[in-house]
Amino acid sequence: MKVLVLGGDGFCGWPSAVHLSRAGHEVTIVDNLVRRRTDDELGVQSLTPIAPIAERLAAWEEATGLGIGYEDLDLAQDYDRLLAVLDGLRPDAVVHFAEQRSAPYSMEDSGHKRYTVDNNVNATHNVLTGLVEARLDAHLVHLGTTGVYGYETSPVDLPEGYLEVTYPDRCGGTVTREILYPTKPGSVYHLTKSMDQLLLQYYAENDNLRVTDLHQGIVWGTQTDDTRLDDRLVNRFDYDGDFGTVLNRFLMQAAIGYPLTVHGTGGQTRAFINIADSVRCVRLAVESADQVKGRVRIMNQLAETLRVEDLARLVAGMLDGSIDHVSNPRVEAAANELALRNSNLRALGFQPILVSEGLMQESIEIATRYADRCDRSKIRAESFWTRDRRAAAEEGQ
Amino acid sequence: MKVLVLGGDGFCGWPSAVHLSRAGHEVTIVDNLVRRRTDDELGVQSLTPIAPIAERLAAWEEATGLGIGYEDLDLAQDYDRLLAVLDGLRPDAVVHFAEQRSAPYSMEDSGHKRYTVDNNVNATHNVLTGLVEARLDAHLVHLGTTGVYGYETSPVDLPEGYLEVTYPDRCGGTVTREILYPTKPGSVYHLTKSMDQLLLQYYAENDNLRVTDLHQGIVWGTQTDDTRLDDRLVNRFDYDGDFGTVLNRFLMQAAIGYPLTVHGTGGQTRAFINIADSVRCVRLAVESADQVKGRVRIMNQLAETLRVEDLARLVAGMLDGSIDHVSNPRVEAAANELALRNSNLRALGFQPILVSEGLMQESIEIATRYADRCDRSKIRAESFWTRDRRAAAEEGQ
Repeated sequence: MKVLVLGGDGFCGWPSAVHLSRAGHEVTIVDNLVRRRTDDELGVQSLTPIAPIAERLAAWEEATGLGIGYEDLDLAQDYDRLLAVLDGLRPDAVVHFAEQRSAPYSMEDSGHKRYTVDNNVNATHNVLTGLVEARLDAHLVHLGTTGVYGYETSPVDLPEGYLEVTYPDRCGGTVTREILYPTKPGSVYHLTKSMDQLLLQYYAENDNLRVTDLHQGIVWGTQTDDTRLDDRLVNRFDYDGDFGTVLNRFLMQAAIGYPLTVHGTGGQTRAFINIADSVRCVRLAVESADQVKGRVRIMNQLAETLRVEDLARLVAGMLDGSIDHVSNPRVEAAANELALRNSNLRALGFQPILVSEGLMQESIEIATRYADRCDRSKIRAESFWTRDRRAAAEEGQ
Repeated sequence: MKVLVLGGDGFCGWPSAVHLSRAGHEVTIVDNLVRRRTDDELGVQSLTPIAPIAERLAAWEEATGLGIGYEDLDLAQDYDRLLAVLDGLRPDAVVHFAEQRSAPYSMEDSGHKRYTVDNNVNATHNVLTGLVEARLDAHLVHLGTTGVYGYETSPVDLPEGYLEVTYPDRCGGTVTREILYPTKPGSVYHLTKSMDQLLLQYYAENDNLRVTDLHQGIVWGTQTDDTRLDDRLVNRFDYDGDFGTVLNRFLMQAAIGYPLTVHGTGGQTRAFINIADSVRCVRLAVESADQVKGRVRIMNQLAETLRVEDLARLVAGMLDGSIDHVSNPRVEAAANELALRNSNLRALGFQPILVSEGLMQESIEIATRYADRCDRSKIRAESFWTRDRRAAAEEGQ
């Protein structure tokens, strides 16, 4: 299949692009490299040294004999060029990772909130209108988040996107109806993924676009079988307060002897998936396009749910680390339970890697190997959801 | 109260601004006058001759002795200036009409879809971030649409934004929960109002903003007691295929002896409200800010629901007109029933004007008076929801 990978230079996009390439697909990456410029903005860099995109692609060809195309364009801004790429390449599938993906970054200040909404909503919408305008029947695979369900304890295992509900009709009977699970995003970033859901729903209905929305958990790990082939193929490892996600951050903190920072009680339960599983799920989604007809196919992309405090203890225990409870910068429930179904991807053959299976060792090795690249001043989360949260944190210091 | 009226030069914004002014509020209009440029783009003009904004404001002061402030700025683009206005003026209420409001215009082509999403989402988001950044506890009154509920026959009278639903929990019991009524927008324009709902919900929750969302029906009529005070205060009357709304279009068509164009079967049932009621409802919303705490207050702003075919017959009967059934350019249910609650505004004192009460005479007089300004070539709807709809229309000709 011809597959366009939008955002194919990022943390999930890059390993997905090479995985799809190795699986026999003809891959073209579209990316404006903004994630690298965001590192510059934040004065931080990936713990792992990321090669320039041209070098990555050359190394891939060297290692595997497989070519990957590359288009440098801004999806949210360069619609005409996006259309030309869609029209020229006529892909069978478009995988869309090209959104600002950090919740803390999205909450830094008005400018970052506004950038996140403007960039993410317009990027997704441009892809949708582009597919319609180019008269392409390509299957769109969109990276969403389990965060659209919200993180309050739910009395049900969270379904895959849709929920059957009942309410009284006007004649004393009841109505039963399947709806999009009511969204409760926890940051401006999550909000854009909730808005994406409405965009996808509309275009699937009005224009019969075939769409899969992957509601993904927090990704941990760094490398995949493909990115391990050559040092120049190494994936990103983000550890900073904005882009470092919780498990990877703990592993890095423990590896360098920095206390594991737990925000609030640590009672937050979240969904997790290893990066190697993430890329396999993306491939499973791409290769099962024949399942997608009519409404958007939504699949929960996660291996398991885990409590932040438990993760911190696990990692601290492994590496003799200490835990530092800090004031929670986010507006969120102090503690929650969480269970999500992932039957759709399991039915396609997904066999999740669990945190307990020892793969954390690899992240620890990476963190140890590149420890000298770590700027400890960048580890703490400095993005607060409200002024009150900032004040509480400053008081606590 | 100090009231900022965003989009205060438009069809609903202008009569609302003067109504709020006459009710004793200190009004400032923010508008980039884009609606006038859209007329230029479409090669059409309001049937009524609209005075330049400065002349409108001068005429208002002459007629009433009341001053209205004016700021020319683009909400979606000029965030820094918006922030300066919010911060300088520190309004008690912000009424937000400043969105592209035509469904057909939003469906013209990719460019218009993209403009509508970009403009409407960013305008609403900028207002929200602006209120947070300026530390303003102003009450935001947002103009939404009854279209967010979708136009399929519902077995319930549509509630005011929220719906109590039940579903099975994981232990054999049931969950009861109040959710935003599941949205099913019928155009890209309506989609942006659905996305606005999520933006409003998020900021009300994260930042404790006080928000009222008015889900308004199709507005008919032209003048209000205030805009009648002077010819230079006259309100817009749109009759073109993009911006002309159904009842006003019928009245104008009948007045000039043009067949009333019914799209599809005419079995579509829609919500309606007279412009004079619309401005009163906006005032009721503004003046009841003390009701708004916590979640977004949603009020359905409509007088009644009516079937398009019935409206066409009513108007044709009054004026001895003929009806022309044309191929429906929209993707929508061929026929539907529709009932919506409007108890929230009624509880505030809203007493709706009904179509049957003879106020249509006024629109007929306006249409007759300005008939020579009508360009008949602009009456037909030329915006098709899909290529198939366009092909069907061309085949039918």
